Amino acid sequence: MRFENETIREILREYRKIWAIHHLRSLAEWDSDVMMPKGGSSLRGDALAESANLVQSFYTSDHFVSLVRRAEGADLNDYERGVLRVLKRTIHYYMALPPELVAEEERTVESAKRAWEQAKEKSDFSIFAPHLEKIVDIQRKKAEHLGYEGHPYNALIDLYEEGATVDFIDRVFSEVLPTVRDALKRIVESEKYFDHHELEDITYERQDMENLNRTVLTSFGADWGHFRMDVSAHPFTIDLAGPQDVRITTWYQGKDFRRSLLAAVHEWGHALYELQQDAELCCTPVSGGVSLGIHESQSRFWENHIGRSLAFVEAFYEDFRFAIPSLEAYEPMEVFRYFNMVRPELIRVEADEISYILHIVLRYELEKVLIEGSLPVSELPQAWNEKMEEYLGVTPPDDAHGVLQDIHWALGSIGYFPTYALGTILSAQIRHAMELDLGPIGELIRMKNFGPIRIWLKEKIHQWGSVYPPNELIKRATGEELNPEYFKKHVKERYEKMYLS
Amino acid sequence: MRFENETIREILREYRKIWAIHHLRSLAEWDSDVMMPKGGSSLRGDALAESANLVQSFYTSDHFVSLVRRAEGADLNDYERGVLRVLKRTIHYYMALPPELVAEEERTVESAKRAWEQAKEKSDFSIFAPHLEKIVDIQRKKAEHLGYEGHPYNALIDLYEEGATVDFIDRVFSEVLPTVRDALKRIVESEKYFDHHELEDITYERQDMENLNRTVLTSFGADWGHFRMDVSAHPFTIDLAGPQDVRITTWYQGKDFRRSLLAAVHEWGHALYELQQDAELCCTPVSGGVSLGIHESQSRFWENHIGRSLAFVEAFYEDFRFAIPSLEAYEPMEVFRYFNMVRPELIRVEADEISYILHIVLRYELEKVLIEGSLPVSELPQAWNEKMEEYLGVTPPDDAHGVLQDIHWALGSIGYFPTYALGTILSAQIRHAMELDLGPIGELIRMKNFGPIRIWLKEKIHQWGSVYPPNELIKRATGEELNPEYFKKHVKERYEKMYLS
Repeated sequence: MRFENETIREILREYRKIWAIHHLRSLAEWDSDVMMPKGGSSLRGDALAESANLVQSFYTSDHFVSLVRRAEGADLNDYERGVLRVLKRTIHYYMALPPELVAEEERTVESAKRAWEQAKEKSDFSIFAPHLEKIVDIQRKKAEHLGYEGHPYNALIDLYEEGATVDFIDRVFSEVLPTVRDALKRIVESEKYFDHHELEDITYERQDMENLNRTVLTSFGADWGHFRMDVSAHPFTIDLAGPQDVRITTWYQGKDFRRSLLAAVHEWGHALYELQQDAELCCTPVSGGVSLGIHESQSRFWENHIGRSLAFVEAFYEDFRFAIPSLEAYEPMEVFRYFNMVRPELIRVEADEISYILHIVLRYELEKVLIEGSLPVSELPQAWNEKMEEYLGVTPPDDAHGVLQDIHWALGSIGYFPTYALGTILSAQIRHAMELDLGPIGELIRMKNFGPIRIWLKEKIHQWGSVYPPNELIKRATGEELNPEYFKKHVKERYEKMYLS
Repeated sequence: MRFENETIREILREYRKIWAIHHLRSLAEWDSDVMMPKGGSSLRGDALAESANLVQSFYTSDHFVSLVRRAEGADLNDYERGVLRVLKRTIHYYMALPPELVAEEERTVESAKRAWEQAKEKSDFSIFAPHLEKIVDIQRKKAEHLGYEGHPYNALIDLYEEGATVDFIDRVFSEVLPTVRDALKRIVESEKYFDHHELEDITYERQDMENLNRTVLTSFGADWGHFRMDVSAHPFTIDLAGPQDVRITTWYQGKDFRRSLLAAVHEWGHALYELQQDAELCCTPVSGGVSLGIHESQSRFWENHIGRSLAFVEAFYEDFRFAIPSLEAYEPMEVFRYFNMVRPELIRVEADEISYILHIVLRYELEKVLIEGSLPVSELPQAWNEKMEEYLGVTPPDDAHGVLQDIHWALGSIGYFPTYALGTILSAQIRHAMELDLGPIGELIRMKNFGPIRIWLKEKIHQWGSVYPPNELIKRATGEELNPEYFKKHVKERYEKMYLS
């Protein structure tokens, strides 16, 4: 039995009310992006806002807060300590922020989203600028209310990645940056560099592609009695009910099939994290992935270390050809090259494994100076373009393909981007640790034998939900703290072979 | 402005919290039947139970109840009086029932559903009998707690059809029964009687049929920006957010295309009632259809008076043929005969317009004696079979095709069935009133000109939501109380022509 302490058990009984609302709200978010007729959006927004208030009032109710306080002195096991840790963080969040600020943020985000859409469509940053100014201002105020040591950005990133700080991220990024920049430079200058692949133009039938995605995920171990795959404007994963109901989406552009396939594989990594959690943690505060960085390490592991491997291409080559007959003209090695081609892109979500890190570093550096107040919003587009030139050697022709490309800032999410890079970096470390136990995973992949990989991930990471904070979980799973060396090694090995030897 | 009284406005602000939960719960119900992976059901059930408690605690909170009490003495307009009437009914419901009884009902229903499924599968009533005994007992207790005048069944039917009583239903049914029974007898004995139609066997492609359903509903005026059509085990309609988001389902058996088409047309009638409600009533207690009977009058109007009309078949004949090429061999009149064939069936949901009434009368008569206690549950199958023989001239070969066919009793819904017949009867009265204003609707249907029909329904019925109780709404819409003469006339006219002349 995971939870034995009487006060903790009382907390968990009470928490089921919050859980029920969380569950229903998650379903509503899924529905909004996947199923809802467009015309339902304003009332859906109202229902989400009303129910968000309800969640806040639960977390801050005297009864609930005093229950949590009562548990603090008790002698607790790891699971129970996890519950307490997560609840204290959440209660702190809701208690620290004045309701006026929360309401102001909601209103601002609501209009910022619309302004951002319009600005992106017209490629006119000035439409979005006043909204972003407000958002930066609100985020700065949020940081003050939440409290922090050192940089105010620390308060914000902690919302997405518990325990992460500017110092930590600076150190990680400074360790990977030379390798990444060097690799990119050498690849672009290499004789073997190609800036287009014929397979990017090969078309597919939507239904055939969907069947292929389903075939691959079924091989990975998808149990469709607890799992769905649908379509949305941007692929995502949502955990509706612990191990019982997790859903992903992918997209279908009709050509360039790696985009649809690798999106499905990526989201599968997120989904498996939720599907393999300990069923006893279900409907408690420690159910589900502990942070965005750890979550991204799971999706990136499946996407980059499985989906982009030569072993994967070879294992599923016949399935690829069955779905897309014109692939016949291309050997598995050619498909592998297409899956792993490096090309400096303007758009983050189109970026390869190497450039991706640079896209994130750029955003992180800009977020920091925005929050510090040392970069005025009005100068953001120019700063963006200069960094693009510096890091990727390309300059956006307009703001739609530059500073306006991502929705995150319009949503008020500042401090979110770094978790993408942390996850990518961590995924290599996880692979390394896994291979110490299982041997080279290429051989398992080639035999479509994903059971040992799933079990390893479950035992080391998934089953723990949010019981341990991210750093501790990484240490328990891999034997050490986040260590960028594995990612650097991975980059060298994969791209050395492809471009530089 | 519909709501001016300050207390009412305060009530409505407070009510939005309940509305938000209702909205999310409705979405969860839709998802459970249409989208959810099967394995998600137990946690979904938990979330619905937790949130149901939340709804009850809102309705019975001192704050909310005293607000409603405060509004009682005030000088209110029709809309405001409607709010008060609906809230008082709901509060009475939640206050009158002891929480233990509500919890007992939930538990009983949960296991009764499973027992019913098993009993139906094995066609063994004895599996279901002890559960039904408990359900009848709980419903009887519910009636006592809710209070009633006259028959205890009055307390139960009022939950589905505000103001309806045993006396009222007895009177209505006794007026239509001779006509219906006489028509059925004469049809079955007629020279023109046929107990099978070739079109029942004609198959279709699922996608073609779906396209046909969409074509028809688009002609009816479906705005897909606020409306969805999906597939489920049994067709249903759900109102998620007033006029903004209403969804229906239909089914596809692969043959006998009227089943899929008329189910879609039927549900469209329900959906339009919700889609055309006054937007200002949205998210208030008077939003949405006022009773199951009125709702069924809308679905039956579209199904029986439009979908089964010769004008409809003629108007959409080319669309039918496009979807199902083998229809070519059949003239519109033949399709009309197929749509309207009368045949005593064992199963209610397969029944024609005439037999349908008899299926309902049978259930109503049995429900009454069950609630009275004058029929023991153990004797129910025999009573069922005898009444089937008496009313329809057929005897179920087993309980699966008899007393076990409907899920309603397993769900604890006793008092629900009569609303199906009331709606069917009322639909003819609505058509009559409509034709006084618009002339014969056959001409509009033939021109696919559904705008005037939609507008009439909106003005007379839909826009009013639950502002007026059912009886008053019927009087306002049609100029008189429920009058079965129009249904009797409709039966004679339609079937006289087809079978008896």
